[in-house]
Amino acid sequence: MYLRQTQELTHAAALIVLQGAIAKAEVMNVPQCIAVVDTGGNLLAFIRMDGAKVLSQISATQKAVTAASSRVPTGGVSAEVETKLALVTDGKLTNLKGGIPITIGGQIVGAIGVGSGTGEQDVEVGMAGIEALKQAIAGQ
Amino acid sequence: MYLRQTQELTHAAALIVLQGAIAKAEVMNVPQCIAVVDTGGNLLAFIRMDGAKVLSQISATQKAVTAASSRVPTGGVSAEVETKLALVTDGKLTNLKGGIPITIGGQIVGAIGVGSGTGEQDVEVGMAGIEALKQAIAGQ
Amino acid sequence: MYLRQTQELTHAAALIVLQGAIAKAEVMNVPQCIAVVDTGGNLLAFIRMDGAKVLSQISATQKAVTAASSRVPTGGVSAEVETKLALVTDGKLTNLKGGIPITIGGQIVGAIGVGSGTGEQDVEVGMAGIEALKQAIAGQ
Amino acid sequence: MYLRQTQELTHAAALIVLQGAIAKAEVMNVPQCIAVVDTGGNLLAFIRMDGAKVLSQISATQKAVTAASSRVPTGGVSAEVETKLALVTDGKLTNLKGGIPITIGGQIVGAIGVGSGTGEQDVEVGMAGIEALKQAIAGQ
Repeated sequence: MYLRQTQELTHAAALIVLQGAIAKAEVMNVPQCIAVVDTGGNLLAFIRMDGAKVLSQISATQKAVTAASSRVPTGGVSAEVETKLALVTDGKLTNLKGGIPITIGGQIVGAIGVGSGTGEQDVEVGMAGIEALKQAIAGQ
Repeated sequence: MYLRQTQELTHAAALIVLQGAIAKAEVMNVPQCIAVVDTGGNLLAFIRMDGAKVLSQISATQKAVTAASSRVPTGGVSAEVETKLALVTDGKLTNLKGGIPITIGGQIVGAIGVGSGTGEQDVEVGMAGIEALKQAIAGQ
Repeated sequence: MYLRQTQELTHAAALIVLQGAIAKAEVMNVPQCIAVVDTGGNLLAFIRMDGAKVLSQISATQKAVTAASSRVPTGGVSAEVETKLALVTDGKLTNLKGGIPITIGGQIVGAIGVGSGTGEQDVEVGMAGIEALKQAIAGQ
Repeated sequence: MYLRQTQELTHAAALIVLQGAIAKAEVMNVPQCIAVVDTGGNLLAFIRMDGAKVLSQISATQKAVTAASSRVPTGGVSAEVETKLALVTDGKLTNLKGGIPITIGGQIVGAIGVGSGTGEQDVEVGMAGIEALKQAIAGQ
C-alpha cells in the first residue's frame, strides 16, 4: 500500500542496449544518437555515433524521456494535441518516432531514444538495442 | 476603491480537492497528475498518482495556472491564437483540456489542473475534486 | 547483473508524509512548503501551507531533489564546493538544510524537502513527515 | 592558411574511455557519472553508474565541456573569477575538479568529465578513462 516494487536497468545493461543499437546502425550504415533513460526519465547512457547529427542528441534524449513517461512508444499522440503537449513541456515531450519503453518480464525498466535517421530507421535501431538486452538476459 | 476583498483556498481545502480528484481517478482506473493553484497561479498542492506520466506534472500544473489566469476552463481558446499564446508565454499558457477554475459562492478562489488521461478524463477528475470541496463546505 | 530491484513510494505514502509534516508544522506554528520526490527526483506530492513563503516552493522542492540525488540530508556539502555545485546545476542542487532521504527497511525510497522556516525547523518538520510514514507502515 | 586539420574521437574511442573510467570507479567502489565530449564540447558518450548521484549528470557533463573549451583540466581558475565565469555562462563553465582534456599525440581530441565522488576521486577516474584509450591506441 505504501511502497511499490520497481526495477531499473544497471549501467551494464544500459551499455548492452547502446552496443546492440550501435551494431544495428552500423549494419544499416545510418549513424545515430542513442540515449537510454531510467523509468523516471533520467539519463543513464548515451552515444553519438561518428557522423550523427549533433542536434539529435536532444531529440534522441527527449524521445527516451517521453517513452519512459508515457510508457508507450513515441509517435502515437494525436495531431490535435501533440503541439500543445510539446509547447507546455518546453519540448520535453516529443511525438517524434524513435522512443521505445524497455520492457523486461512484463515490467517497464527504462526507455531508449534514437535520433538522426528517419523515424523508421530510429525505431529499428532502438528495437535492436532492446533485443540485445533481452538476449543477454536470456543467456545468463 | 483602494482594496478588494479576495478569498483563497486554505491548504486544508487544497488537500480535500486533491483527495476528491484522486478518489474519482481511482474509480475510473486512470492515474493522474493533479495540481491545485491559488488565484495568482502559485502552486498550493500537487500529487502524482501511481502510474501517472511523469511529464504530466508539467502539463497538469500549467493547466491549473492557465485556468486561474483566464478564469475559465482551459481548451476554449481559438485555434488561431492558441499556439501564439503558448509561444509568447514560453509554454506557461496551455489550451489543453483539464484546467478548471474553482468557484465558491460565485467567486473564483483558485484552480485545479489534471493531466495524464485524455482531455475528457482530465476534466472529469478535476470536476470531482471541486465537487468534493463544495460538499465539504456544504457539510460544515 | 542487468536489473536492480528498487522501491518507490506510492501516492498514498506520499500523502501520509505530507500530513505528518503538516501536523508537526501546525504544532510548531511555522507554516511550510513541503515536497516529496521519488528516488529519481521527480515530484510526487507538494503542499504550501497557509502563510508559507511562495518562493519556498522552489527551495523545498530542490532540497528534496538534492537529498534524493545525493542520498544524504542536505546541508553537508563543504563551503568550498557548495556554490560551484549550485551554479553548475542552475540551482537544482542546494545545500540549504531541510532535504532528507526517506529510508524504509534500509532502502532509500524517495526524499522530503521542507522550506519556509529556519533550517532547523525545516529539518524537524521533514523528520516528522518521515516518522508518520514509518508509523503507518509499522501499523499495517 | 584557410583550413586547419583537427582530430576527434570516434564513438568507438569514446566507449573505450567510458569503460576504462567505469573499471577504475568499480575498483575504487565509487559510482560515477562520466561524460565524454568532442573538442567543441558536444556530448559524445555518457554513463551513470549504479548508485551515482542523478544530479551529477549535469556537473560531469559541464566539467567535460569546460575542459574541452579551456584546454586545461578544470579546477585551476582563480577564486577571484570562478563565480563570475560560472554566472556569465549560466553555469556552463565550472571550476569543479574532474574535467580533463584528452590529449593524443600532443593534440587535444576531446575531454572527459567525471562527477559524483570527491574532486580527487573524479580526477582519478577521468585519468583512468584517458589511460585506457592511450593503451588501446598503443596496442593497435
